[in-house]
Amino acid sequence: MNRRMIAYILGAILLTESVFMLLPLIAAAVYQESTGFWFLWTLLGAALVGGAMMLVSRPGNKTIYTKEGLVAVSLGWIELSLVGALPFTLSGEIPSYLDAVFEIISGFTTTGSSILPNVEELSRCMLFWRSFSHWLGGMGVLVFMLAILHLEGGQGIHLLRAESPGPSVAKMVPRMTDSSKILYSIYLALTILQIILYRIGGMPLFDSLCNTFGTAGTGGFAIKADSFNSYTAYEQTVTTVFMLLFGVNFSIYFFLLRRKFDLVYKNTELRWYLAIFFSAVTLITINVAPMFPSVGNAIHHVAFSVSSVMTTTGYCTANFDTWPEFSRVILIFLMIIGACAGSTGGGIKVSRLAILFKSAHAELHRLAHPNTIKVITMDGKPVSRELVAQVRSYFLVYTIVALGSILLVSLDGYDASTTISAVMATYNNIGPGLGMVGPIGNFSAFSALSKIVLSLDMLLGRLELYPMLILALPGTWKRR
Amino acid sequence: MNRRMIAYILGAILLTESVFMLLPLIAAAVYQESTGFWFLWTLLGAALVGGAMMLVSRPGNKTIYTKEGLVAVSLGWIELSLVGALPFTLSGEIPSYLDAVFEIISGFTTTGSSILPNVEELSRCMLFWRSFSHWLGGMGVLVFMLAILHLEGGQGIHLLRAESPGPSVAKMVPRMTDSSKILYSIYLALTILQIILYRIGGMPLFDSLCNTFGTAGTGGFAIKADSFNSYTAYEQTVTTVFMLLFGVNFSIYFFLLRRKFDLVYKNTELRWYLAIFFSAVTLITINVAPMFPSVGNAIHHVAFSVSSVMTTTGYCTANFDTWPEFSRVILIFLMIIGACAGSTGGGIKVSRLAILFKSAHAELHRLAHPNTIKVITMDGKPVSRELVAQVRSYFLVYTIVALGSILLVSLDGYDASTTISAVMATYNNIGPGLGMVGPIGNFSAFSALSKIVLSLDMLLGRLELYPMLILALPGTWKRR
Repeated sequence: MNRRMIAYILGAILLTESVFMLLPLIAAAVYQESTGFWFLWTLLGAALVGGAMMLVSRPGNKTIYTKEGLVAVSLGWIELSLVGALPFTLSGEIPSYLDAVFEIISGFTTTGSSILPNVEELSRCMLFWRSFSHWLGGMGVLVFMLAILHLEGGQGIHLLRAESPGPSVAKMVPRMTDSSKILYSIYLALTILQIILYRIGGMPLFDSLCNTFGTAGTGGFAIKADSFNSYTAYEQTVTTVFMLLFGVNFSIYFFLLRRKFDLVYKNTELRWYLAIFFSAVTLITINVAPMFPSVGNAIHHVAFSVSSVMTTTGYCTANFDTWPEFSRVILIFLMIIGACAGSTGGGIKVSRLAILFKSAHAELHRLAHPNTIKVITMDGKPVSRELVAQVRSYFLVYTIVALGSILLVSLDGYDASTTISAVMATYNNIGPGLGMVGPIGNFSAFSALSKIVLSLDMLLGRLELYPMLILALPGTWKRR
Repeated sequence: MNRRMIAYILGAILLTESVFMLLPLIAAAVYQESTGFWFLWTLLGAALVGGAMMLVSRPGNKTIYTKEGLVAVSLGWIELSLVGALPFTLSGEIPSYLDAVFEIISGFTTTGSSILPNVEELSRCMLFWRSFSHWLGGMGVLVFMLAILHLEGGQGIHLLRAESPGPSVAKMVPRMTDSSKILYSIYLALTILQIILYRIGGMPLFDSLCNTFGTAGTGGFAIKADSFNSYTAYEQTVTTVFMLLFGVNFSIYFFLLRRKFDLVYKNTELRWYLAIFFSAVTLITINVAPMFPSVGNAIHHVAFSVSSVMTTTGYCTANFDTWPEFSRVILIFLMIIGACAGSTGGGIKVSRLAILFKSAHAELHRLAHPNTIKVITMDGKPVSRELVAQVRSYFLVYTIVALGSILLVSLDGYDASTTISAVMATYNNIGPGLGMVGPIGNFSAFSALSKIVLSLDMLLGRLELYPMLILALPGTWKRR
């Protein structure tokens, strides 16, 4: 373990966070909110400590490997959250520090689960910071650092791999710094486009910014108590479309920019993603149509809900907790599936699902035709046995963590819907669940133990298990 | 596909079933129940058709392979059930044939889920047949055939493998017929021992027989409406112990008979099985102790319930549906885990769980120590990569089938506890679930679609997926 290098990266993360805290500080200045000064104190402290860490630990040897990458990312995210929660508690707007940490982890991990009974009681600068944490967490704080910092010798790949969602990170271009820049450019362009479309529809600037941050990161923190219910149909439709867009693998946009349309057309994950979206909308619409004034209205709200749940955003226009069990079960499945790899969405990812299904089908095929071998393909190319084995391991570990979390949260004694969906909603970075934690509920009633478990679930889900789990292995901490 | 050989085996299964139907016929004679004559008509018909099938299809080539073994077993079980249900409906005691088929599938698969609102309304010969189907299905009807029939050239292994639970069937002795005989001898010996212990405690003969059949097959059909609630503590304790015993891999008893104590001591599955049992009893007792008059009383009922759920029997002395969520979640996990491979119990089996956990742990270990390889061991011997891959495939297919079933059953619109636990209780061959299908409920209210899905789930669970799934593959039915 190159501990000096990890300390150096952690210092850089603190410094980066302090720079980003300038934005809520500006918001506080615009809206003349005195609680906003806590952002100043926090960012000064973070900058001081972060700078000191970088100076003291400046490593001679900058080499890091997979293990260091995983540890740096998980510790970095924990550090980000512990510091990011400070303004909430220091200002007294979220009195319990545990609640504030839950809230900001929910922000950075783009979950959107809230412990706030009434979000409209927060000051605007706090709301801004809360929504902005989605935007930051969506593409990844370390990816951002890679885009601006110059890490020698291509070490960045280990950080990028550890922070980016999906079974395999394709290097888009040979240089890692360039890949990060491309990712952030696409991200920024889509963000600006959404803000413009909101403004055209007449949404106030503050709302446009916060709602776009929540959409872009597929986070789902709303700034209104009724989430998206009171926005216009136009604004809701823009949101439906952009949630879907941010759930797509960003390399698709890169291919589009490079005019490689055949790669987009052959993309297995994109096909499955769209097929799942349209199937779910169709099935649920048939199931809930009688509850809406017209079929068109039903499609509007179902499309919004499916887009929101599948991309793990979590905005709501309709209280899907009141829908029939069949629709609720589909929504729970969508929560687990999640969005595409390489997007800002959570869940186990569509590409993993496709690989799992294809490998299960190949297994059955082998029973009927014992002497043939069925090759699994993605994007028209064969998938290596190694990758299939990795995806199956991921699914196995994913399930074990989910079941363990459900067991711990069940100690609180809430009903099965609440317990299971609270875990699924945080673990898959969605936000709202069903029952007590449904679209009109929140997470404030859980015990401290459950809040800690659910916070860890959010981090486990966002960082895709291994960076967090490696912290728990004794072998990680041994000195050579 | 050797179709003639499959037809021949199916004929033999019918003939075997007709012989076993003599027992409820005798019960009807003893208790002078005229509805019992329907067993006579059914067995005569089955014998006639079965004998004709064997004569007509007498195959020149008796060679069968894995595929034929799987197909013969799954079709055989479906045939057994369709015929076994006839007396219920012909006699009018279960008017709906679909319900009767559900009930007898639940019997043969040793599930114990019932569509009967009040079981005490059935005549004694019907109750006897219902309980006896557990005993037959527990060890396997085809295993029985192997023990008495003489299949040339060791072809039996494919049938035995397809019908026996667990990731790998160890040939205990070189000859398959002898293995089957040993299995059935141990099974019979334990059965007789339990009947004797019941009789010593003063349980009536009819109750002793039926309750032993239900325990031996880990089935759980009770002959009283309150299951085991009104039996004495002694009778309940005998049941607790024998449920546990029938959930153990039968090769353990074979080792004990051969005085190979070191093999018993080193057995990984047995250790995990006992560890899970005692951990679950401890955790649940702590959780529910305040609901019972004394801790001793709590342990008594918790041990019974855990033994019943974990071995997938399904007898009840306490209504565990009223226990706190934490205990309910543990019970659902136990339902999924199930008993040992090579026992009469269901679930995914303790040995598969052990292999899954060990392989997940090895995966994490590899993250922290990338240059080392951790070998997975069972019973002190390394496990082949092939077996680990098979177990992971099984787990994957298992999950896909479970989720698909939940989706279909959710169409009925019952709550999450009911829907999920109904699928889990049938799929893992347990019997009672939670909510509407809890210990004091039953399955009668479900729609025809759900009853069909749950019936298939019982068969899928008992035959461990592949024999049933292969029927759905088009490749299976192609002529060469």
